[in-house]
Amino acid sequence: MEGTDVDDGAHIHAGRLGAAGGRAATRFTASIGFDQRLFRQDIAGSRAHARMLGRVGLLAEGEVAALLGGLDRVEAEFAAGTFPIRPEDEDIHLNIERRLAELVGPVAGKLHTARSRNDQVALDMHLWVKAACADVRRGARALQGALLQQAEAAADVLAPAYTHLQHAQPILFAHHLLAYFFMLERDRARLADCARRADVSPLGAAALAGTTHPVDPASVAAELGLGGTYANSMDAVSDRDFVIELVAALSILMVHTSRLGEELVLWSSREFGFVEPDDAFATGSSIMPQKKNPDVAELARGKSGRVFGHLMGLLAVMKGLPLAYHSDMQEDKEACFDAVDTALAVTYALAGMVTTLRLRPGRMEAALAGDFSGATDVADALVRRGVPFREAHAVVGALVRLCVESGREPEQLPPGELAALHPTLDADVVAVMAPRAVVAARRSPGGTAPERVAEELGLARRLLAAEG
Amino acid sequence: MEGTDVDDGAHIHAGRLGAAGGRAATRFTASIGFDQRLFRQDIAGSRAHARMLGRVGLLAEGEVAALLGGLDRVEAEFAAGTFPIRPEDEDIHLNIERRLAELVGPVAGKLHTARSRNDQVALDMHLWVKAACADVRRGARALQGALLQQAEAAADVLAPAYTHLQHAQPILFAHHLLAYFFMLERDRARLADCARRADVSPLGAAALAGTTHPVDPASVAAELGLGGTYANSMDAVSDRDFVIELVAALSILMVHTSRLGEELVLWSSREFGFVEPDDAFATGSSIMPQKKNPDVAELARGKSGRVFGHLMGLLAVMKGLPLAYHSDMQEDKEACFDAVDTALAVTYALAGMVTTLRLRPGRMEAALAGDFSGATDVADALVRRGVPFREAHAVVGALVRLCVESGREPEQLPPGELAALHPTLDADVVAVMAPRAVVAARRSPGGTAPERVAEELGLARRLLAAEG
Amino acid sequence: MEGTDVDDGAHIHAGRLGAAGGRAATRFTASIGFDQRLFRQDIAGSRAHARMLGRVGLLAEGEVAALLGGLDRVEAEFAAGTFPIRPEDEDIHLNIERRLAELVGPVAGKLHTARSRNDQVALDMHLWVKAACADVRRGARALQGALLQQAEAAADVLAPAYTHLQHAQPILFAHHLLAYFFMLERDRARLADCARRADVSPLGAAALAGTTHPVDPASVAAELGLGGTYANSMDAVSDRDFVIELVAALSILMVHTSRLGEELVLWSSREFGFVEPDDAFATGSSIMPQKKNPDVAELARGKSGRVFGHLMGLLAVMKGLPLAYHSDMQEDKEACFDAVDTALAVTYALAGMVTTLRLRPGRMEAALAGDFSGATDVADALVRRGVPFREAHAVVGALVRLCVESGREPEQLPPGELAALHPTLDADVVAVMAPRAVVAARRSPGGTAPERVAEELGLARRLLAAEG
Amino acid sequence: MEGTDVDDGAHIHAGRLGAAGGRAATRFTASIGFDQRLFRQDIAGSRAHARMLGRVGLLAEGEVAALLGGLDRVEAEFAAGTFPIRPEDEDIHLNIERRLAELVGPVAGKLHTARSRNDQVALDMHLWVKAACADVRRGARALQGALLQQAEAAADVLAPAYTHLQHAQPILFAHHLLAYFFMLERDRARLADCARRADVSPLGAAALAGTTHPVDPASVAAELGLGGTYANSMDAVSDRDFVIELVAALSILMVHTSRLGEELVLWSSREFGFVEPDDAFATGSSIMPQKKNPDVAELARGKSGRVFGHLMGLLAVMKGLPLAYHSDMQEDKEACFDAVDTALAVTYALAGMVTTLRLRPGRMEAALAGDFSGATDVADALVRRGVPFREAHAVVGALVRLCVESGREPEQLPPGELAALHPTLDADVVAVMAPRAVVAARRSPGGTAPERVAEELGLARRLLAAEG
Repeated sequence: MEGTDVDDGAHIHAGRLGAAGGRAATRFTASIGFDQRLFRQDIAGSRAHARMLGRVGLLAEGEVAALLGGLDRVEAEFAAGTFPIRPEDEDIHLNIERRLAELVGPVAGKLHTARSRNDQVALDMHLWVKAACADVRRGARALQGALLQQAEAAADVLAPAYTHLQHAQPILFAHHLLAYFFMLERDRARLADCARRADVSPLGAAALAGTTHPVDPASVAAELGLGGTYANSMDAVSDRDFVIELVAALSILMVHTSRLGEELVLWSSREFGFVEPDDAFATGSSIMPQKKNPDVAELARGKSGRVFGHLMGLLAVMKGLPLAYHSDMQEDKEACFDAVDTALAVTYALAGMVTTLRLRPGRMEAALAGDFSGATDVADALVRRGVPFREAHAVVGALVRLCVESGREPEQLPPGELAALHPTLDADVVAVMAPRAVVAARRSPGGTAPERVAEELGLARRLLAAEG
Repeated sequence: MEGTDVDDGAHIHAGRLGAAGGRAATRFTASIGFDQRLFRQDIAGSRAHARMLGRVGLLAEGEVAALLGGLDRVEAEFAAGTFPIRPEDEDIHLNIERRLAELVGPVAGKLHTARSRNDQVALDMHLWVKAACADVRRGARALQGALLQQAEAAADVLAPAYTHLQHAQPILFAHHLLAYFFMLERDRARLADCARRADVSPLGAAALAGTTHPVDPASVAAELGLGGTYANSMDAVSDRDFVIELVAALSILMVHTSRLGEELVLWSSREFGFVEPDDAFATGSSIMPQKKNPDVAELARGKSGRVFGHLMGLLAVMKGLPLAYHSDMQEDKEACFDAVDTALAVTYALAGMVTTLRLRPGRMEAALAGDFSGATDVADALVRRGVPFREAHAVVGALVRLCVESGREPEQLPPGELAALHPTLDADVVAVMAPRAVVAARRSPGGTAPERVAEELGLARRLLAAEG
Repeated sequence: MEGTDVDDGAHIHAGRLGAAGGRAATRFTASIGFDQRLFRQDIAGSRAHARMLGRVGLLAEGEVAALLGGLDRVEAEFAAGTFPIRPEDEDIHLNIERRLAELVGPVAGKLHTARSRNDQVALDMHLWVKAACADVRRGARALQGALLQQAEAAADVLAPAYTHLQHAQPILFAHHLLAYFFMLERDRARLADCARRADVSPLGAAALAGTTHPVDPASVAAELGLGGTYANSMDAVSDRDFVIELVAALSILMVHTSRLGEELVLWSSREFGFVEPDDAFATGSSIMPQKKNPDVAELARGKSGRVFGHLMGLLAVMKGLPLAYHSDMQEDKEACFDAVDTALAVTYALAGMVTTLRLRPGRMEAALAGDFSGATDVADALVRRGVPFREAHAVVGALVRLCVESGREPEQLPPGELAALHPTLDADVVAVMAPRAVVAARRSPGGTAPERVAEELGLARRLLAAEG
Repeated sequence: MEGTDVDDGAHIHAGRLGAAGGRAATRFTASIGFDQRLFRQDIAGSRAHARMLGRVGLLAEGEVAALLGGLDRVEAEFAAGTFPIRPEDEDIHLNIERRLAELVGPVAGKLHTARSRNDQVALDMHLWVKAACADVRRGARALQGALLQQAEAAADVLAPAYTHLQHAQPILFAHHLLAYFFMLERDRARLADCARRADVSPLGAAALAGTTHPVDPASVAAELGLGGTYANSMDAVSDRDFVIELVAALSILMVHTSRLGEELVLWSSREFGFVEPDDAFATGSSIMPQKKNPDVAELARGKSGRVFGHLMGLLAVMKGLPLAYHSDMQEDKEACFDAVDTALAVTYALAGMVTTLRLRPGRMEAALAGDFSGATDVADALVRRGVPFREAHAVVGALVRLCVESGREPEQLPPGELAALHPTLDADVVAVMAPRAVVAARRSPGGTAPERVAEELGLARRLLAAEG
């Protein structure tokens, strides 16, 4: 994997090495097994480069036409699955270069004027990463859409909210689902930032020091839809920040999907029973007819590990590398490709699972019964009636004990028993403890009260719509 | 670590647990050992919260004044190192709460109206991370300044550039140094993006579902200089994205400093001899007088590992956690603090080392002698005289062999010998091979030619100046 | 951090560097802040080294005595907390060396005959790691003891076992607890292997190439209780495998404790309700009296992340380091120390939590009601009566549906209804479905039948007893 | 991926799910794409299981014969590449089960008596990991052989040894190479320990609780060459320790190969010039004829990252998983397979590169000229003549300065000039400074003196021979 400013396409890689050059190493060093995936980017980059070479006079008009025609045929062969990949042409660039020479003859070599494999592969990765950011943003958006749809359907459904997996306070289940919506919104923003930083062309850096040819890299960048070029040619060929940043952004996304996966597994359990996955998104057991396993949620959780691992791998690869290109850097591709594939698979699989999820509102509301998760609000109400907080707290404690010991819900207590606990305690006060009342009272911005959740739903709809 | 909407500051954590509640676990679960570092943020947050409680009528004017006075005293005690930390008050919040009660009496409890430790600690971390982004940006800027200064001093110095640690082409050494300048510029941009995403206040989320009190979280955020509030209260207390994003950005920064560290180690070796660290930034050996070890560069390289490790740790901690707060999340602090401390220490240490570095231009230029790293340019020159590339390539090959075998540099060959190799070969053509000529010819944008490097220097100066 | 064969203890580190040598870097490069923890190991190593120098005639008897006396005083000062640590003596070795010179005069310098800081610090780490392996083995054993105790108490308790967090089959709860016992047994074996590989002395390697003095490293190793010496001096000072292997073994241990932590959190939830943590190992909420948070279990789960992170950090630090010592390697200590501290804290905290855990057998058995997790066994029983499996499976399916639809348990069905489903179906067959019958039937080796679990308990007792 | 005790091979996975069961999820959850690699292990396990079922009377003799015949045909189809893989039969087990049914009819279903996919896949991984340990041990041995061969050839070659990449002391280059030999010896020991812990059969655990059938798991283990069975069935199906331990051992191995890779890159540089890779293990550049890139060494260094990443991924996947099987656990395979493939590729590629490496002893010895790396030994010699160390140190300092200033080597100084520096200073003393003398004097055990290196070579030969 290294470059040349000009080459005739025939004696690739000869140099000072004899005929055996690299022979024993090829299987170990070849990247064609995975970098063939960059064929579209490589061809797009070559088209733009060829046109630029024509514009600045380094290629004749006819030569440019011949090259573009050849590149069209190469792309068609890839699309048709007929492109003849040769492992001994170790990477995608040499495979295309060789094939182009077969198709259009010696002019193929002129395509490599003022270009090295070092800046060529960097360009391919920039284009790929930029597109991947957009792809994963769409995947995240699909999952957001699914969450929003379920949240709208569940706008009235009460459920317990947890801290430490202990009942904390009642909420609207929509509020819980929307928390994931907003996490994903941040993921989309991070991916947009990453795409912005990837949006730069390294072409013109050649091997590492720039080229002697009168090239116009800015016009190549513009034709490829990239926002600019590198200020420093050595940086251009040594930089893999944008790959690491993408996998870091995907890792944070995978934290979110792993959390959602965990909750879906919990909610699908017999003990929680808050949701039932659609049969199409679950698997059974041939012999245990009671089993219905939320595999998709489990894998959404487990697959976070591989993305974290790729991030770790990339950081370790790049750590301590002197400038400029080293072969270590070809390790960037498989990690990046698999991280993106995983993020896409997980977001779309979860989107499908969430969309088809059957909520069980009865189970959620039943779970609130007797959990006294509204006790705080009774104390607050007494405070509003002038009872000192310390005294109010004690009264509520006694109320809870009375209910637990007598097996009754607070609203089943007659006025007399309430008044016996404290003169200010009456049915109105006890009513604030009802889950729906507790929820309704949390009207602070971002809170779980219905009108606040309605605002969230509106905001979520607008955010999705904004991206058409 | 969990919250309350209102508390009198006396019976912290009693709840349903008996007197032994948490006793055995305290040493294991207490975070005061490390979260005391958040005292400034915690006090700032409490001040803003107290003022808001006053504005919305939840506290009387005098109560607000008492609280603010108490908080001033608490802060002064921390600054003076006299604040009495009690390990049994497991975290920074409870320590301050207890101390405040000692200082101002029962009104201290009212400060916790409409606030939980869950949103309080999240706020503290938001403030800390935002400030850390600015701190590390300054550290990166210091290193950029040092690189720029050396690049300006080395604007005329030739050196070999490498790929695969093999001589590739001659460059201006300034060009090499500036590659790092632009890497760090991206780091600063990433940190700015991270700060922007951390710039949001979770206050008002209370334990997780919002509060029943008529709070005004937006005004608290504004007073604290934060850009906004969370749209969803459960997200507000469950989100640690901004911590992970910071440590991910620091990891990429550490990739850069590790690469620079590696190069400084290489350049300081006897074999390269391109630079000599200042004595103040090296260490010796008591018995081997020839030793001068570039420890700072080595540690700059090695310390990348701990930051990568913290990133992995944080991802693993957050993976698969159900909403909302879990004690696992208190693991965010030490990792984040140490990552920031490390990034600051490394950037400033390298800035000092680079600033005081003695370049050895003679060694750099001598390294170019006889490496034929300009051979390509001779072939290109012949092509410009009409020689087919293939033939030109062979001519240059013969020229290189002749020099190697006769122990002469190409410019030492008399005209006759040159012409014998090829009729078009003369001193003018050979001259393009001189390192300075090779460098001068690489005038493509971002290339290493002096006028391009001058442009880079100008850009670098403007970027630094822009941030004052 | 680098060595010397002989030194007089006065002019440390002068070498070719001027007076400013290392000055600016000291704060960045000093390790005394954390390596002071090695003081016992450092002193033990020095004692053994001094005695050996005496035996081979490099020190006079009186010199050895003086050094040993001085080392005793140094150790006493450390123990008393009165040892004067000087940050400018950057590490533990130089601090002790300086203090020893203050205490015993110039003979202190002779202690460093035939020794460098490179082999000295490696020795300290070998001793520390070996001891840490034993410490963590004890921690794991404590947790095993707690699990065994609870398993013995729960030997008759039925509970659901899960795959995919769905009810799979009934088991004895002791069987579940013992699964963790055997995981920890593997951890102890891994730690023993690690200790065995750490059990080797690098002394005698000096800076990296051996020493010219007629030393006897084997006797030093023997005196320190180490099993041998390195075969190669460069390997001796460059090797940190044993540190990485320890942290890798701890990471696997933390996988186990994180899984147990997760289960304790699940079991403590209102939905499962299988266990109740003792108040001493839980924390409450000052305002939500219903809350009882299993913090210890959460932190046991969360703290796995930091150990994984340290492992990643160490691998990244050591990756690609040329031989022999580099300052990067001083990064091994904090990671190793914190990983061991964490593993110890987690194993003992969980041991306490498990020991004091209140099981709720009624909740566990109730969870089995109506889950049909024994349905397979009915089909198997029919097969034993000659019914083809396919037909048997259909019969059981119909039985399950009948129960679900009529709201009855299988054993509530009268003989007639059973026979109507299939002639061979009677109460005897249905009885195999009872959880206790299902459990009793799983008599395969390692299975959950009471006699098998009794065997496991016996084995567990023997394994613990074997280590006294 | 979940099990059954008995199945007829026809209605796989039906259970309570309708016809659409798992349909949408299949592409996401299917593992056949990668677990087909376990076909040999799966078939071997099935053969042993079938024979046991026959022995204990669960299968008739003819049934066993039919199954074994079918399994032979399945294996032949895999070997011939004609096995019809069906993605909708999501994993290797179901594919083989289905194909077996096609080949031998309904008896195929009986093979799954007393076995679940949970213990089946665990068995396959145990067999695979055990074999992989042996494979990688062979790869490490191949690299050891190459190092030993070069060390033998270089037994007389002097070279500088480094700390901090600064010249420290002269050594025999063989000593440096042998340091890697002994690192790899530890790797082999770790892999042997790992194989020992993987050497246990989970069969008989069935889904997770054992089976009701009278199986004999110990005999199955014995037939498969495994050392034993699990003591606890839940542990048997939940354990992936052996996979993590393998990848941890491979990570440490990769630390070593990355260090060797780094050194090969350094040594191949123009500045060091200590070695020249064979053309077959290097790659060139089509246009820069001076380039010869040590790609194999670079990739050996860079590929450490992906193995570290897989380790991180596995730890994250297993963290916090409740017992027993979860689909997350199928993520173990790709990580494990790729880590093993990488370790094998790297060890064999480096073995080839090292074997064919051309050492350049002249360059190594020349690098020692004038580096005064033997200065310490002169001081030591003066001490032996009775000069106090402090005075001796000063004398040597003056000697070094005199040589540097006059451009002479110490042995070029006439007796008079030596005596002028100090009366005891003569040619005999100066001679100890010669690199070969310095090396010869380091006779401590494990040191670099020729007789010690000869011992190392002998030990290395014996260690390799011991393993045939």
